[in-house]
Amino acid sequence: MIKDIADLQNKLQQLLLSQKNEVNSGQVAEYIPALAKVNPELMGVCVATIDGKIVGAGDYQQAFSIQSISKVFGLVMAMNRLGDSLWQRINMEPSGQPFNSIIQLEWEKGIPRNPVINAGALLIADVLASHYSSSKLAFRSNMRMLAGDESIQIDQEVYQSELSHGNRNAALTYLMKSFGNIEAEVPDVLSHYFTQCSIAMNCQQLAQSLLFLANKGIDPRTNKAICSPQDSHRVNAILSTSGMYDQSGEFAFSVGLPAKSGVGGGIVAVVPNYGVICAWSPPLNKFGNSVVGMNIIKGLAEELGLSIYH
Amino acid sequence: MIKDIADLQNKLQQLLLSQKNEVNSGQVAEYIPALAKVNPELMGVCVATIDGKIVGAGDYQQAFSIQSISKVFGLVMAMNRLGDSLWQRINMEPSGQPFNSIIQLEWEKGIPRNPVINAGALLIADVLASHYSSSKLAFRSNMRMLAGDESIQIDQEVYQSELSHGNRNAALTYLMKSFGNIEAEVPDVLSHYFTQCSIAMNCQQLAQSLLFLANKGIDPRTNKAICSPQDSHRVNAILSTSGMYDQSGEFAFSVGLPAKSGVGGGIVAVVPNYGVICAWSPPLNKFGNSVVGMNIIKGLAEELGLSIYH
Amino acid sequence: MIKDIADLQNKLQQLLLSQKNEVNSGQVAEYIPALAKVNPELMGVCVATIDGKIVGAGDYQQAFSIQSISKVFGLVMAMNRLGDSLWQRINMEPSGQPFNSIIQLEWEKGIPRNPVINAGALLIADVLASHYSSSKLAFRSNMRMLAGDESIQIDQEVYQSELSHGNRNAALTYLMKSFGNIEAEVPDVLSHYFTQCSIAMNCQQLAQSLLFLANKGIDPRTNKAICSPQDSHRVNAILSTSGMYDQSGEFAFSVGLPAKSGVGGGIVAVVPNYGVICAWSPPLNKFGNSVVGMNIIKGLAEELGLSIYH
Amino acid sequence: MIKDIADLQNKLQQLLLSQKNEVNSGQVAEYIPALAKVNPELMGVCVATIDGKIVGAGDYQQAFSIQSISKVFGLVMAMNRLGDSLWQRINMEPSGQPFNSIIQLEWEKGIPRNPVINAGALLIADVLASHYSSSKLAFRSNMRMLAGDESIQIDQEVYQSELSHGNRNAALTYLMKSFGNIEAEVPDVLSHYFTQCSIAMNCQQLAQSLLFLANKGIDPRTNKAICSPQDSHRVNAILSTSGMYDQSGEFAFSVGLPAKSGVGGGIVAVVPNYGVICAWSPPLNKFGNSVVGMNIIKGLAEELGLSIYH
Repeated sequence: MIKDIADLQNKLQQLLLSQKNEVNSGQVAEYIPALAKVNPELMGVCVATIDGKIVGAGDYQQAFSIQSISKVFGLVMAMNRLGDSLWQRINMEPSGQPFNSIIQLEWEKGIPRNPVINAGALLIADVLASHYSSSKLAFRSNMRMLAGDESIQIDQEVYQSELSHGNRNAALTYLMKSFGNIEAEVPDVLSHYFTQCSIAMNCQQLAQSLLFLANKGIDPRTNKAICSPQDSHRVNAILSTSGMYDQSGEFAFSVGLPAKSGVGGGIVAVVPNYGVICAWSPPLNKFGNSVVGMNIIKGLAEELGLSIYH
Repeated sequence: MIKDIADLQNKLQQLLLSQKNEVNSGQVAEYIPALAKVNPELMGVCVATIDGKIVGAGDYQQAFSIQSISKVFGLVMAMNRLGDSLWQRINMEPSGQPFNSIIQLEWEKGIPRNPVINAGALLIADVLASHYSSSKLAFRSNMRMLAGDESIQIDQEVYQSELSHGNRNAALTYLMKSFGNIEAEVPDVLSHYFTQCSIAMNCQQLAQSLLFLANKGIDPRTNKAICSPQDSHRVNAILSTSGMYDQSGEFAFSVGLPAKSGVGGGIVAVVPNYGVICAWSPPLNKFGNSVVGMNIIKGLAEELGLSIYH
Repeated sequence: MIKDIADLQNKLQQLLLSQKNEVNSGQVAEYIPALAKVNPELMGVCVATIDGKIVGAGDYQQAFSIQSISKVFGLVMAMNRLGDSLWQRINMEPSGQPFNSIIQLEWEKGIPRNPVINAGALLIADVLASHYSSSKLAFRSNMRMLAGDESIQIDQEVYQSELSHGNRNAALTYLMKSFGNIEAEVPDVLSHYFTQCSIAMNCQQLAQSLLFLANKGIDPRTNKAICSPQDSHRVNAILSTSGMYDQSGEFAFSVGLPAKSGVGGGIVAVVPNYGVICAWSPPLNKFGNSVVGMNIIKGLAEELGLSIYH
Repeated sequence: MIKDIADLQNKLQQLLLSQKNEVNSGQVAEYIPALAKVNPELMGVCVATIDGKIVGAGDYQQAFSIQSISKVFGLVMAMNRLGDSLWQRINMEPSGQPFNSIIQLEWEKGIPRNPVINAGALLIADVLASHYSSSKLAFRSNMRMLAGDESIQIDQEVYQSELSHGNRNAALTYLMKSFGNIEAEVPDVLSHYFTQCSIAMNCQQLAQSLLFLANKGIDPRTNKAICSPQDSHRVNAILSTSGMYDQSGEFAFSVGLPAKSGVGGGIVAVVPNYGVICAWSPPLNKFGNSVVGMNIIKGLAEELGLSIYH
């Protein structure tokens, strides 16, 4: 275990140093121009603990596109709004398929397998778009509140880029609508979804924003209940079985923490009763997960003995 | 939390009592005659802790067919034999498919998604059949050693019944062989597999046999390393993402423990650093999991606050 | 064989009579209100021969929604426009899947299996929408020219109904667009597609309009080449292997004519070197084919010995 | 059209000459050693007409392994034995899948899509193995009778080779047995199937043996009914929609004849009311069809105007 902050900071810096060459074994997301131009050599990591410590290294205060990490926040908002009735419209099983597969969605008649594959996140976007008068503003406000930073913004260039390359997500949403599982108009669902994906945040903000998942739903800084203890449990369960795309099993096997990655290169990992780790490095492996981000979190989890499976 | 043994025993008895009517909401496995004739009203539960306590209720000393719970033991034996090279022949991802699906096996060119779906367990059976001079005896010896009971036997009636209804498992194995991923002769693989499924054990024996998974690979009764700490972690990770058939996500979501079920009606659940729970009741839900077994483990996990996701 | 027109007319009337009760074994298409309200007891049949005979019975001059029969005409227009380059964007293989399956489209990376499943017809709609300044007018003009009737119209009620229930077709089109296989804007593709489906024609008009397929591409009434002899051959081949949805094999097996059905209850069948049969009756079987329409064409083909497989 | 035999023979020779270099664009089947060693430059073609003409060129009297062409003969035998009840155990739809796909067989619960994919041919083998006291001898006798040559033999080397590489076919058969759709023991089904695949015949023998399909079920040489006119129609329909593996649609589109290919490099094509063409050349394209064989039959069909779709 780590004795003090200086000790942890050293460890984080060593981990970053050890990964300098690893950025070459991944590929920055290229499906939209706004992501493709990010400097692949940036990397950062931050640990936030429930007892109030913040330790970071590298570019941990440099904002990046949170992309699919936004699915965690959207899920919590939708759970709070709909309660258990949410689970009539979406399942909580691992998918065994690529994150944007349309095959499984047809098999299961428009019921997404879980909230962190694209189909599921689009359904969550529908819930938000249907139940908030202005879901995009509500989402941004929620992120600002959790991060404690009113300057958090949507990256408009990323948003426009997403919108003009969103045909597969449109296909998924129209397919769900054909099964009667989308309430709002499809363009509104897509607009909400791409908005939440386009939020720019840094490692420190993301780590702090998710502390409630390490603390049974309570934000330790404010003692405010962000969600119920049960829902905190449920979100961690979903992230453990499905949070790392089609590499979720391997991540559980080799790391052992509830986690969520985004194609912007960020990964957040929850350590129940301890805190949250957020690592960032843009180059991705073939599953869409940050190569260096996974290595850093794995190294740290081993060093600190953080796995939930021990 | 539970204060003492009497307290826990009361709790187990109350849980069993509360489930008397639930046996009617499931169906005893009927695919082989030897399983179909089990009395559906039998039920038992046992908790074994790493500090040596054994608490049981109901028919917890009545032997039943362990069926797929045997996959856990086979996996550990194969990991010990092959080391990391095992993972070139099998994956560790959740499947998102029924346990006996052949579709996914064709997609993934004969590489099973994980060791606890049937295809994966048959591959493990091939490893054992190929690497032991007498894999069936080795398996039985291993079970006797772990349970500390030399009287443990193969139920020959179940074995013969499995053998004569094993066409789908034969199909899975021949398909893997067509991809070059089976070394032994297919009938030998099947014979080993049905043998290990046909072992009869009771809740107490099963709970005790798996204590090493709650104790970083060390059997707490003997201090003997059954597997490495890393492999203990890996097995728990696989059981958490995939151990409850196509209901694994829901089990994580609502219970939150590494677990494995069998169509004989047994379920084992590992509580890291605490112990192992084994519940048994023959009637199954549509996913092949014991209805009452799940309820009991869920009730106990909630009562004792045992989830790994909190 | 039939000796003369009176003989054939008698035969057609007998066939219709024999089917009076069969309308109860099918279901009128109910996915859009405008189709659901059609009188299920209407039925008609018309034979047009390349030597200029027209013989009809029942409601053969009552207009109905041609629906997927429009796919044949759209295909010919697209073949004329693009020539062989069309076949780089679409295949000509039977699909082995329901007509609106999205699974196969993902497997085959946005290349539809053939032009008469929905994905293929939507791709053809894209070709027309992209290559005509006003593809909807061009399509209607083409139908009027082939039928020799300037009063043929789009049924606006059907069109609006299709448009508001078109989510699955939208999903198919967006998925193809995500693979780069759609040139026009998706709403324009859908609008063209629903327009051509909503054309109302009767049995006589449809039979006459397709005479060129029985005559190596030449309309026998005008001696005008509607398509090349090779393309006439190709269209008949596609209709023979794929024209009757997932019942195409059975139709070949029991009838043996190139044919295309629509969910409006119409079926057209081409008899090379002889003529075209069009039958109509709204109730559909589970494959989406008119129950009575199939029976009538089968009865007539047997009576006249019309199969291409003898 | 061809005026006389000399004319046709010239045409066949020209076609063969034109294909000398095409053998390099295919690959001889390599899945079993006995097929891999065939000389890839051999090629032959033979036309047999229902009025008794036999015209051949190249190596048309050289025997080769008939492989999947045997499926046609097995199908006719099974239809004769079981009558229409056969179609309760097997469908007649095109598959839209590779010939040896196991995915579709699971979807459709053990009912093969048609008799010329592997699953279907294995089901037919089961019918024969179950309904003949010695199905292998019965099959060989049938081939000898149809070809009029008592010297036709099973190639034992090919048979042994098939048997030791038959794991995928075993998987398909066990999967059907698990659905209750196989009556005989699986090894007996496989043994029959590999036996019929291993028969060695030449182009002339194959063309003559199938004349009954061009003549409404009657062998024109003997006036003997090999099958009913209806069954002759049905077999031609199945060959038209499904006979050329996953290239059946393209073959219909570009050639337009009921046909069946085998991985030994042979292709037979039926011309109703005219005769049968058999072409042979071992190198195969990616679909498993002889490259040169397809070219020759296409060239001849165009030259003679033989398509059924005109």
